[in-house]
Amino acid sequence: MTPLLTAGVGPAIQALLDDLVASHRPSSPAGRVPESIPHLASADPLAFGIAVAGVDGSMASSGDADLPLSIQSISKLFSLALALAHDPEGNLWSRVLREPSGTPFNSLVQLEAEAGIPRNPFINAGALVVTDFLVELLGDAAGSVVGFLRDLSGSAHVAVDEGAAQAELAASSRNRALANFLAGFGNLRNPVETVLEHYVRHCSITMTCRELARAGLFLANGGQGGPGGQPVLSAAQTKRINSVLLTCGMYDAAGEFAYRVGLPGKSGVGGGILAVVPGRCTVCVWSPGLDAKGNSVAGTSALAELTARTGWSIF
Amino acid sequence: MTPLLTAGVGPAIQALLDDLVASHRPSSPAGRVPESIPHLASADPLAFGIAVAGVDGSMASSGDADLPLSIQSISKLFSLALALAHDPEGNLWSRVLREPSGTPFNSLVQLEAEAGIPRNPFINAGALVVTDFLVELLGDAAGSVVGFLRDLSGSAHVAVDEGAAQAELAASSRNRALANFLAGFGNLRNPVETVLEHYVRHCSITMTCRELARAGLFLANGGQGGPGGQPVLSAAQTKRINSVLLTCGMYDAAGEFAYRVGLPGKSGVGGGILAVVPGRCTVCVWSPGLDAKGNSVAGTSALAELTARTGWSIF
Amino acid sequence: MTPLLTAGVGPAIQALLDDLVASHRPSSPAGRVPESIPHLASADPLAFGIAVAGVDGSMASSGDADLPLSIQSISKLFSLALALAHDPEGNLWSRVLREPSGTPFNSLVQLEAEAGIPRNPFINAGALVVTDFLVELLGDAAGSVVGFLRDLSGSAHVAVDEGAAQAELAASSRNRALANFLAGFGNLRNPVETVLEHYVRHCSITMTCRELARAGLFLANGGQGGPGGQPVLSAAQTKRINSVLLTCGMYDAAGEFAYRVGLPGKSGVGGGILAVVPGRCTVCVWSPGLDAKGNSVAGTSALAELTARTGWSIF
Amino acid sequence: MTPLLTAGVGPAIQALLDDLVASHRPSSPAGRVPESIPHLASADPLAFGIAVAGVDGSMASSGDADLPLSIQSISKLFSLALALAHDPEGNLWSRVLREPSGTPFNSLVQLEAEAGIPRNPFINAGALVVTDFLVELLGDAAGSVVGFLRDLSGSAHVAVDEGAAQAELAASSRNRALANFLAGFGNLRNPVETVLEHYVRHCSITMTCRELARAGLFLANGGQGGPGGQPVLSAAQTKRINSVLLTCGMYDAAGEFAYRVGLPGKSGVGGGILAVVPGRCTVCVWSPGLDAKGNSVAGTSALAELTARTGWSIF
Repeated sequence: MTPLLTAGVGPAIQALLDDLVASHRPSSPAGRVPESIPHLASADPLAFGIAVAGVDGSMASSGDADLPLSIQSISKLFSLALALAHDPEGNLWSRVLREPSGTPFNSLVQLEAEAGIPRNPFINAGALVVTDFLVELLGDAAGSVVGFLRDLSGSAHVAVDEGAAQAELAASSRNRALANFLAGFGNLRNPVETVLEHYVRHCSITMTCRELARAGLFLANGGQGGPGGQPVLSAAQTKRINSVLLTCGMYDAAGEFAYRVGLPGKSGVGGGILAVVPGRCTVCVWSPGLDAKGNSVAGTSALAELTARTGWSIF
Repeated sequence: MTPLLTAGVGPAIQALLDDLVASHRPSSPAGRVPESIPHLASADPLAFGIAVAGVDGSMASSGDADLPLSIQSISKLFSLALALAHDPEGNLWSRVLREPSGTPFNSLVQLEAEAGIPRNPFINAGALVVTDFLVELLGDAAGSVVGFLRDLSGSAHVAVDEGAAQAELAASSRNRALANFLAGFGNLRNPVETVLEHYVRHCSITMTCRELARAGLFLANGGQGGPGGQPVLSAAQTKRINSVLLTCGMYDAAGEFAYRVGLPGKSGVGGGILAVVPGRCTVCVWSPGLDAKGNSVAGTSALAELTARTGWSIF
Repeated sequence: MTPLLTAGVGPAIQALLDDLVASHRPSSPAGRVPESIPHLASADPLAFGIAVAGVDGSMASSGDADLPLSIQSISKLFSLALALAHDPEGNLWSRVLREPSGTPFNSLVQLEAEAGIPRNPFINAGALVVTDFLVELLGDAAGSVVGFLRDLSGSAHVAVDEGAAQAELAASSRNRALANFLAGFGNLRNPVETVLEHYVRHCSITMTCRELARAGLFLANGGQGGPGGQPVLSAAQTKRINSVLLTCGMYDAAGEFAYRVGLPGKSGVGGGILAVVPGRCTVCVWSPGLDAKGNSVAGTSALAELTARTGWSIF
Repeated sequence: MTPLLTAGVGPAIQALLDDLVASHRPSSPAGRVPESIPHLASADPLAFGIAVAGVDGSMASSGDADLPLSIQSISKLFSLALALAHDPEGNLWSRVLREPSGTPFNSLVQLEAEAGIPRNPFINAGALVVTDFLVELLGDAAGSVVGFLRDLSGSAHVAVDEGAAQAELAASSRNRALANFLAGFGNLRNPVETVLEHYVRHCSITMTCRELARAGLFLANGGQGGPGGQPVLSAAQTKRINSVLLTCGMYDAAGEFAYRVGLPGKSGVGGGILAVVPGRCTVCVWSPGLDAKGNSVAGTSALAELTARTGWSIF
């Protein structure tokens, strides 16, 4: 183990990140990109970026860490955190469970069997319920997620890619089916189209790896680090989000990711993965090529090497 | 066995129908009515009507056989017949199967497992595909079903209950979910809302037992009996619709209905059942109280007694 | 339509059967044979036989109608009939349903969801329950089925292929799993191995097409035709078995068979199909090559042509 | 946070454990005990014990920590560790996955859908495969698990409760079904009854909380601590077992346990739970009353309070 085990983020990290870029950036297109989402299908298949943000405020990055990526499902993590920040009593948890789904992320089967209560907030159905919760609470759910991410990342560049959002909204048959299904069970309180639009828009936010790593830092820091020195969440809430990330954050591959990487993390079909090393740092990696489960191929393997070399696994 | 076995519909039938009304009309509300559909929830729970139409043109009825009922899923039978009348090559069958579903009628599970191809045209998903087929073919699908039923029944009173349709459309989350799900698999060719509106409207047609029995008569008559003496369908098409009715016409209780009644039939949550005695007659029975599977309690038991007493089972 | 529509089985039938043999006997191996069952895997893939038995006692056949075939699941029909012959009150029906399964024939899913009550007596789980019922009732269940089939067919050659049965028993992991699963739900009353052995043995009975057609004749004859002129079953029981055959007799292809052929029927993975034309005759066809659902390819197409040419569909 | 955060196990721990016993020991029977397993049904419903073993070799306990309990599914953890100790290349992982099951622990559904490859080694199907692997490797699988546990715990009292095992074996229809199902898919290499007997016997081992806590200590210690100072597993293997414990160790409640407790853990229907605090200690808690998911009610709530008060959550 290296000295970086005892410091936040030091110079040894930079060398490690450069190494990971050198060995994990695809030399030819690998994996698949989501054909159903036009702006993702056009992403550079050879892109690869990685950033580490330390709880001491330090930051290191390598590769394409300053290029904007579509955060996609990583927004589910931040919309959940925003909802819980307004919900200290946890009322949200009567409308969504915290169990791994065991089935592909857009499956309707489990939802039907369990009467409209999604298994967790990171499958699409659960994230629609969280979005509905935010619409009820804040009105402009998508705008609020953008504002939350700007505050957390300290970057004014965080924004919805509106063209991408409109294209995705037009192709959202599956999510529209899910939302109507939830509505049929009484688990949406706002109109389906409203919820769906806010959902698609906060999934269409673009950010860089550096911005994402910084935005997620409160999860490594016991909830501390909001704007003006305020905590984002309580320490207990933060631990619990991390636990849900670990068991449910990687679609149908949560077990495999925990096994190989050993960190709480959330992936998106844009190819990004944001991982949390509690008490130490966050890591954001990005590469567009996806595996069969929807997770970045190069991103996952880079994170596996990262934790193997640093000992940062929580286990 | 009685002489009615050798004639179309004779005086012995009238006595039998009166008997069935006397013994099967509920004396107190029994079964359930669909609470989610306001105009059905207000139906008279003690209503009971029955009508028999013979292939020789005779007609007998008893009880509330002249009161209009909401035909609901019975319209799926006529929209299928109308589609096949325009589809001699059976192109429709590439988009919907002909197998019993084995699960409740609005389940999404099987649809997902089989990539958006509904198991048969009588579950909601299948009927949405048939409606989409009619919209593509004829434009005004619901209006065409109304016209088809007027022609077949010879009654100008057949019409959509537009108030009921609008109320049902507003409460159609499950069917809207299904339609979006089908669209996500590429198995709808028209806009979801268009298909859904035509679907709900043709389900909201009101007809009497006598009108329904007459409208279905071509199914007992080898497809003969359209307006102007034209056949409605070929003999082969007719036999095949009857086979799909027998295996799939009673939601999740097709096996039980075949066992107890022994006739092809289609039920609706309005409490109506239209049954076919090939070569002889059709029978339409109506009573609003439903069993757990969505079929009329009194209607099913009356039909069971009818076939027991007449020997009209096809088996 | 030909004169054979008004007679039982006349000379025109012979010509028709010869025709069917000429046009449906495979000229090269088609379909698959069950690799897991050694003695079936070695069947002649070009074999094809057909026999028709009339309710008037007449009989016609063509092709390999006198070669013995392994009846396999066709025995489920006779074990059910034997059980019901001893169960006029229908106690069996509290332990097995009468609904199509909608899933492949050896699936455990539905059984688990429905607490150990098989969907119908023709899926393996249901047939195991029927066999258990016979063991309880008669002791030697397999021997009783053999005796029943000898009486019905008038042939002393009906017998269990004991070598085949032993080979199949040794490879019965799936059925052993099913039987233990049923036992876990309390729906077997005899030891698993006992039930399994009787089940495999009555499935390993060998008979010719002519013997099978004659054995099933009571189903076309209102239950009449047992040894000594006694009825085998009541008319009502007979109609009901036929209804279960129609909705559940062809594994996961019951709807398709009803659509194409239009007759109650039971198939086996030995390549045999026994179909019933109520009031008229039975037809047994055999050819070993199976389709993906486990039904004889050539047998099904021959039956489809037979009903198209004779008008014998019940619809 | 208390000083116990910086030491292994010190005097403050004793006070904490006494506190937990005082507040979590049931004052009246709560939860359910497994009625199907006679010797568990007779357990004292008011029993409650807890033990903590530190990586520095210290040990503290309170309540009924010296009473023997039936370890049941906790043996799945040790049989997995024993298998991996003999399998540095991880060949086992081609026969069992590492994903949460998302369904109750004895479900056959997922197994069927995934062609006989169990979702993880902690559901019954997966543990049967692990047992089969041990039988192949070591012959006497159950005896080897006993020996392994004696070595790890330093206690010669660890033993199979043979009477309990025989009673359970006789009532193992579900597991016998599972094992035959696995055999049908070719994922068992030894006879079903052999595997089943070894499986039931290692589940019927009895140990005290103190013995279990000590036996699991290598999981908190990077794999160190085998007999004679040898490592039990490599550090990488140890982290990975802990990750599988976290995502799959609590039947269908893994997400909820991670959320409330925040530690890798394995429960058994005997009411025991063994949890791991990596780098620090193990905790074994026992109380027989189970929740609907099969986990100890009082045990889970005591662990939740323990991690809330100590900050030992891994998140």
